[in-house]
Amino acid sequence: MFFASDNTSPAHPKVIEAITRANEGYPHSYGADQIMADVRARIRDLFEAPDAAVYLVASGTAANALILATLVQPWQAVFCHRAAHVETDECGAPEFYTGGAKLVLIDGGHAKISPDGLKRALSATGQVGVHGVQRGMLSLTNVIENGTIYTPAEVAELAAIAHADGLPVHMDGARFANAVAAAGCTPAQVTWKAGVDALSFGGTKNGLIGVEGVIFFDPKHAWEFELRRKRAGQLLSKHRYLSAQMQAYLDGDLWQKMATDANAAARRLSEGILTIEGASLVHPTEANGVFASWPRAGHRRAHEAGAEYYFWPENQSLEGPDDEQLAARLMCSWSTTKADVDRFLDLIRG
Amino acid sequence: MFFASDNTSPAHPKVIEAITRANEGYPHSYGADQIMADVRARIRDLFEAPDAAVYLVASGTAANALILATLVQPWQAVFCHRAAHVETDECGAPEFYTGGAKLVLIDGGHAKISPDGLKRALSATGQVGVHGVQRGMLSLTNVIENGTIYTPAEVAELAAIAHADGLPVHMDGARFANAVAAAGCTPAQVTWKAGVDALSFGGTKNGLIGVEGVIFFDPKHAWEFELRRKRAGQLLSKHRYLSAQMQAYLDGDLWQKMATDANAAARRLSEGILTIEGASLVHPTEANGVFASWPRAGHRRAHEAGAEYYFWPENQSLEGPDDEQLAARLMCSWSTTKADVDRFLDLIRG
Amino acid sequence: MFFASDNTSPAHPKVIEAITRANEGYPHSYGADQIMADVRARIRDLFEAPDAAVYLVASGTAANALILATLVQPWQAVFCHRAAHVETDECGAPEFYTGGAKLVLIDGGHAKISPDGLKRALSATGQVGVHGVQRGMLSLTNVIENGTIYTPAEVAELAAIAHADGLPVHMDGARFANAVAAAGCTPAQVTWKAGVDALSFGGTKNGLIGVEGVIFFDPKHAWEFELRRKRAGQLLSKHRYLSAQMQAYLDGDLWQKMATDANAAARRLSEGILTIEGASLVHPTEANGVFASWPRAGHRRAHEAGAEYYFWPENQSLEGPDDEQLAARLMCSWSTTKADVDRFLDLIRG
Amino acid sequence: MFFASDNTSPAHPKVIEAITRANEGYPHSYGADQIMADVRARIRDLFEAPDAAVYLVASGTAANALILATLVQPWQAVFCHRAAHVETDECGAPEFYTGGAKLVLIDGGHAKISPDGLKRALSATGQVGVHGVQRGMLSLTNVIENGTIYTPAEVAELAAIAHADGLPVHMDGARFANAVAAAGCTPAQVTWKAGVDALSFGGTKNGLIGVEGVIFFDPKHAWEFELRRKRAGQLLSKHRYLSAQMQAYLDGDLWQKMATDANAAARRLSEGILTIEGASLVHPTEANGVFASWPRAGHRRAHEAGAEYYFWPENQSLEGPDDEQLAARLMCSWSTTKADVDRFLDLIRG
Repeated sequence: MFFASDNTSPAHPKVIEAITRANEGYPHSYGADQIMADVRARIRDLFEAPDAAVYLVASGTAANALILATLVQPWQAVFCHRAAHVETDECGAPEFYTGGAKLVLIDGGHAKISPDGLKRALSATGQVGVHGVQRGMLSLTNVIENGTIYTPAEVAELAAIAHADGLPVHMDGARFANAVAAAGCTPAQVTWKAGVDALSFGGTKNGLIGVEGVIFFDPKHAWEFELRRKRAGQLLSKHRYLSAQMQAYLDGDLWQKMATDANAAARRLSEGILTIEGASLVHPTEANGVFASWPRAGHRRAHEAGAEYYFWPENQSLEGPDDEQLAARLMCSWSTTKADVDRFLDLIRG
Repeated sequence: MFFASDNTSPAHPKVIEAITRANEGYPHSYGADQIMADVRARIRDLFEAPDAAVYLVASGTAANALILATLVQPWQAVFCHRAAHVETDECGAPEFYTGGAKLVLIDGGHAKISPDGLKRALSATGQVGVHGVQRGMLSLTNVIENGTIYTPAEVAELAAIAHADGLPVHMDGARFANAVAAAGCTPAQVTWKAGVDALSFGGTKNGLIGVEGVIFFDPKHAWEFELRRKRAGQLLSKHRYLSAQMQAYLDGDLWQKMATDANAAARRLSEGILTIEGASLVHPTEANGVFASWPRAGHRRAHEAGAEYYFWPENQSLEGPDDEQLAARLMCSWSTTKADVDRFLDLIRG
Repeated sequence: MFFASDNTSPAHPKVIEAITRANEGYPHSYGADQIMADVRARIRDLFEAPDAAVYLVASGTAANALILATLVQPWQAVFCHRAAHVETDECGAPEFYTGGAKLVLIDGGHAKISPDGLKRALSATGQVGVHGVQRGMLSLTNVIENGTIYTPAEVAELAAIAHADGLPVHMDGARFANAVAAAGCTPAQVTWKAGVDALSFGGTKNGLIGVEGVIFFDPKHAWEFELRRKRAGQLLSKHRYLSAQMQAYLDGDLWQKMATDANAAARRLSEGILTIEGASLVHPTEANGVFASWPRAGHRRAHEAGAEYYFWPENQSLEGPDDEQLAARLMCSWSTTKADVDRFLDLIRG
Repeated sequence: MFFASDNTSPAHPKVIEAITRANEGYPHSYGADQIMADVRARIRDLFEAPDAAVYLVASGTAANALILATLVQPWQAVFCHRAAHVETDECGAPEFYTGGAKLVLIDGGHAKISPDGLKRALSATGQVGVHGVQRGMLSLTNVIENGTIYTPAEVAELAAIAHADGLPVHMDGARFANAVAAAGCTPAQVTWKAGVDALSFGGTKNGLIGVEGVIFFDPKHAWEFELRRKRAGQLLSKHRYLSAQMQAYLDGDLWQKMATDANAAARRLSEGILTIEGASLVHPTEANGVFASWPRAGHRRAHEAGAEYYFWPENQSLEGPDDEQLAARLMCSWSTTKADVDRFLDLIRG
């Protein structure tokens, strides 16, 4: 019953096998290994993007911050939602990597940027000539931090607004696999076909040990990115072990299978919670995270049984009336079992 | 016959086993895993430094740059050798991480800083008040880039000069294990007992997949380092896989055993080369790298047989008179076998 | 009838005289001139702060950004109002100078931070350990961008909240003289006695050519500031011409006299506008800026007669119904005459 | 007898007059004043560069650092002489403004870069792919720090080498007027016609209060520079006072006249020193600085009489044998009189 985060789950056994297999011989280092060549080709195929520049780094913060730094100037604004991971959970990595660009925060329900919200932010920025920061780029998270997704059509609408101002679009896809599985679309449909210029293609939260892909659909950014990655200490010498993880991820669509399983577990959890009297969803369950509230008594039983998850927001307490509703975030992963879900539901149902 | 770099060698099988073992359950992420707690305790023991702040990152450039950024102000100088990795091979990562500190370069044979060289550099820096950069810190590499080492006494002499000016001392120990094995000293003797304030404790070049320890012997730097690491995207969520590698490294002194084997292979190689007529060493062989020259004909035979290594400097050619001496760098690792060495020697000997 | 900005007004004749007087001999450069020694002593007297570190720079953005960089770490937050000059009008200078600190924006009427607003912002920041930016400092503007002021008691209340969290407090006093004149307090009362740690002591908008004082009430920041100023290219070699301006500013309380005159002009303007039918104030007139609305017909007459000022917000138009209310910002300076004010009032009154 | 620096001299009276004249009315701020429009047109004429982007800032360090930041990427190298002002006297401003670019230092007599020295530096940089910093740009100082100059032909030779690698060329012309006067060339001949892409057009050391022109001969850099200038706090609101100084500088070729006078004073001084027994020049006297040595007894007499200048290097002493040669730097300015020079010569001659 570990719902604290999808990054506490183990890696898929096939990933460990791939690393074990890669542990032979003396391939070239720094990404010149043959496995990476294969990974690059497959990702281009998968995304129907034969010219895309494809890289691997070891953390999601690194993937995001390096992409932002490549796409934005220090005196420009990155438009993102107030709840975006780049704003709330990266300790200012975007500001560090970009040399001091400004994150301009957009409000909106379920941590989702609305077309109107984006338009308002755009028109309020860059109106005072040299005195204010300039419009720079748009960053979307998909799956969104609050568990909902942007559909290809929604991405396209936002990207069109950004592009009309000449701004490139980044997608933070730490849970990209879950978003694709939820939307039932192809990777291309929700990215470059919808106007996304660069993608953080997450693996760590979905069954890898620690690998995130970076994809620029326009290869003109390739060399600058490579220099920025190296300079940031994010180019690993024994790169083959990143390559091997990503190869296993792509093999037999393991990435989609794991995401589909995680999403199904969340749906089962969500549906189960809604059968509890007084329980409700804080955000719709669209991918692998459930944001729901149920009576404190159920929380107490779960905690006593060792279940791990976060209150959402965190400043709630197990102390208090039994029937008060407390909200929580429950993250599922590829390794969440039906038994886990059902046992948890039994506990909170009482 | 792969002598191109110690970072092309595979990881030790025990490291893979450790990762496999770690792939269970749902431990806390971001370094709060139990394995890390054990690693921290063991490193403190190993270094006889019960208060040391101990961290893991995934690349040597990250370890170095983060330590420099923690120890130096943007308007200060990092004193290092002209051939230091931080100057030549990190694409300006130190300047990026420190916010623009200046590397002041010291000359000296075998890429080694001499006490006089350091004193001259110190007295030439910070003499014009606010107009010039201020003296900041000293960074030493051990094993040195050209294959020699600083003994504990040599480190102590340099550190005393730095400390007399109030400057902290960093040791880039990408090959720290090989240096310790070569010097026949304890880890403490060549670090804090000799005046080193922070160490990049290398693992990647010595049999790990990709882990470098960061050790501050004075824990006052801990919190700042943690924030800098996070902000740099260098704090990995599934940290247990870094922890597991380092735990395996420490288990049964695997780190020292691997380094001792690598050094022995280099010595065998070095001694063998010196039996070739006209061959000579460019730098003494003190650890796991051999810098030597031998006739072109021997290089040709080695290349034809598939041996991999770098000319040193690189701008030399297989084309030319047979008996001309060409210099090369040959790096050995834990996995270099006697058979590899002997076969290579046979080839270049002719 | 020039009400566009207080920085379009000429310098006071005594300032030109002082520059002319300073144009003799060969004093030491870079701030080691005798006039600066006198200025430093007088500012310490004026602020009853015998240990204060006192500097001069040539722009308000430089004064603010250098102070922020000295008081905040790159991974920390600067709390300020959403309408603060450091956020809206400096093109990201704070992010540049601080190495990427984050401005956390507080809402509140009349561009004024309320104690509750500050508390909410503080409690929403720095709650996720190493993952989010840390609480860093508070920056207040006085006179506030919308023309109101913080009284000493209001400053004290906000500073106490910041200090309770260990955060230093900066006051952007681009119009500090006007704030002091409006509050009828001493400079010390509204700064260090109320908890302000560093002040941008504006001169440019109040009759100087281009000089802003920087005052750290705790001199421990002195050396760091001096290095940052030099490194930023903000240490002028022929510093005596900055010193001379500031000396003239302090002589015979010229700074207070000019501010008092500017405030009086604004009050006359404000009171005159309120006699117009339908006119109203958007913000109270407390210092040298009037934020008011009156019918479009009056705006048209003023524009036709060559009056200069900004609509506030700017996206309003002279085209439209005569009796619609349009809001404007009218800035007065030391050189605004009663005749200017009265002529303008006659025009808009019709 | 003030030879310490050309930045301790007063401004030319015509500059003060110009500032006084400019102190009328309410022109637009931030460089939109009419005087600046005139200055821009005149500088374009003077440099035969009708499309040049022309700006003014208040310090030479700002001019240099902003130009470097506009022309170089953070992961690139700025090639300059080891004795260049940007390396030795700006406290790391280039590193700060560029986001951590690396200054690659070239040796060479009289602080002058030789074509061979430049070629060697270029071929030693950017040879290891992504691992090292990339070649970025060339920065020349003219007048050179040691008092000699680059002729148009010398600039052209160096610029051609840089351009062959695609690198832009900056000229730090803090003493540009003296260099032009010394070379007897036009401003265009020693700048864009010789391959210079951007010029710091010094005024402060040559009779202004504090103004440096920034000229990009290719206007494509204009907007980026404007944003960088604002963001750095280097865009002054009451810009007309900078404009007025520069206008006076250009009026009737005052800039050339002052430089010619300063150079003549230096020549007189240099020739006089050489008549002293045992005296010699350390560097040729080509512009307004004299680098010479003469017996200690002469230094003592000069110091006792209140002459001001620097030993060069500074670590020499008035204590010691009378006839030992001590080297010094003597800077002349527009205001150095023949009487000053002759009195000084009498003193050191004894």
